Amino acid sequence: MRLVRTEHEGQPTWGELQGQTIHLTRGMGGPRAGAELPLGSARLLAPAEPTKIVCVGRNYLDHIRELGNDTGDLPKEPGIFLKGPNALAEPGGTVASPDWTENFHFEGELALVIGQQARNLTLENALSHVAGYTCGLDLTARDLQKTDLQWFRAKAADRFCPLGPWLETDFDPRDVRVQTRVNGAPRQDGRTSHMIFPVVDILVYLTRFVTLEPGDVVLTGTPEGVGPLESGDTVEVEVEGIGVLTTHIG
Amino acid sequence: MRLVRTEHEGQPTWGELQGQTIHLTRGMGGPRAGAELPLGSARLLAPAEPTKIVCVGRNYLDHIRELGNDTGDLPKEPGIFLKGPNALAEPGGTVASPDWTENFHFEGELALVIGQQARNLTLENALSHVAGYTCGLDLTARDLQKTDLQWFRAKAADRFCPLGPWLETDFDPRDVRVQTRVNGAPRQDGRTSHMIFPVVDILVYLTRFVTLEPGDVVLTGTPEGVGPLESGDTVEVEVEGIGVLTTHIG
Repeated sequence: MRLVRTEHEGQPTWGELQGQTIHLTRGMGGPRAGAELPLGSARLLAPAEPTKIVCVGRNYLDHIRELGNDTGDLPKEPGIFLKGPNALAEPGGTVASPDWTENFHFEGELALVIGQQARNLTLENALSHVAGYTCGLDLTARDLQKTDLQWFRAKAADRFCPLGPWLETDFDPRDVRVQTRVNGAPRQDGRTSHMIFPVVDILVYLTRFVTLEPGDVVLTGTPEGVGPLESGDTVEVEVEGIGVLTTHIG
Repeated sequence: MRLVRTEHEGQPTWGELQGQTIHLTRGMGGPRAGAELPLGSARLLAPAEPTKIVCVGRNYLDHIRELGNDTGDLPKEPGIFLKGPNALAEPGGTVASPDWTENFHFEGELALVIGQQARNLTLENALSHVAGYTCGLDLTARDLQKTDLQWFRAKAADRFCPLGPWLETDFDPRDVRVQTRVNGAPRQDGRTSHMIFPVVDILVYLTRFVTLEPGDVVLTGTPEGVGPLESGDTVEVEVEGIGVLTTHIG
């Protein structure tokens, strides 16, 4: 099933996508509320209402190598950083290229949204706490990663996390293709089976330290091929079995 | 005026503290709702409902020096890191000493809570966007700051941000004393006038990159004197003109 977040009569609302029709629901994955919208005329929103966005850095070896961070040892534990809800941007939206970075990068990723409160998850029950999977674009001010105390401006600025177009609930995250295109040209092409820490391991690790709430977003890391963006570019992140997240750089 | 967050009939609610009486209000700083509670029997909650907790690291030179981070140059810009709302803990509460750190540290700080949405603030209008000021305890797994990719476990774990006891709305943050005591013994004793980046500069800086929402928390950095905590310790953070935030380490 595909869960979308959209606007109806000026209010954000959740819905269930069936073919080209959105059936509005009471909450994420809730019962149908009666009204319907055609997908074609709906303005989609980022399909999550997070209290936090938790991101994994350096989860694909080829990406570690391309940034010169390969020390010979694989990371022993996932490297985690945070964005706030201010970072979300809607599918099909425009994100302004900030005037305070000289190297504004795309990182296409598999993302997931939590469905029920999660603490101390196990390998067995972790995936049952996921509401659904979607495409994420982890926008990054690459130059400021090196100079800032922590990755604040580099990762957590407003609209640095386009997400969507919807949540796919019937999805196996273990071996799917993750591609990023810029202006139609292929730039990233990886498979989630190449993650150093698969989704289930990420969830078990995170929930030893933090409680994940319904709506929280987890970004699972990016494969190699990251690069700079310019004003006027269009970025597409495609996750096999989900769809395409399109973001315009303004 | 002092704004408290407490529980009434099992629900979190805001109130206004007058003497020893809490007058319940509709929302933070809202109109009185009618009911009253005696402060003595109220269970206080952290006085904030944040979408994010934004923290300043290395904002007092003596603290930079004590951690061996003095490179001879003062930071040119505030060093920022994030915690999520999962980090909040209530005044008078108990925080378990985590079994995954060997060096669990206290950092007492002046904290503030945002009152209205803030983006691109100026030196002139920044402070008018603050709802009130309180005491914050930035709990830190010091050992993991050095080993983790970013300060996730080190700073953002559940209950790593006790806050309270209330918001003081009539407050000038420019030159007040910030003290931390452990089991009654003085450990930190600084003045906000020694901040490298005063509150107003922090707010102007942050809102160039992120939108601060009503309820968001800003921690303004800690003076020197930080040190380890053990199970059984009691930490008190006192900010002159506000009150004392007490936290028990379990």
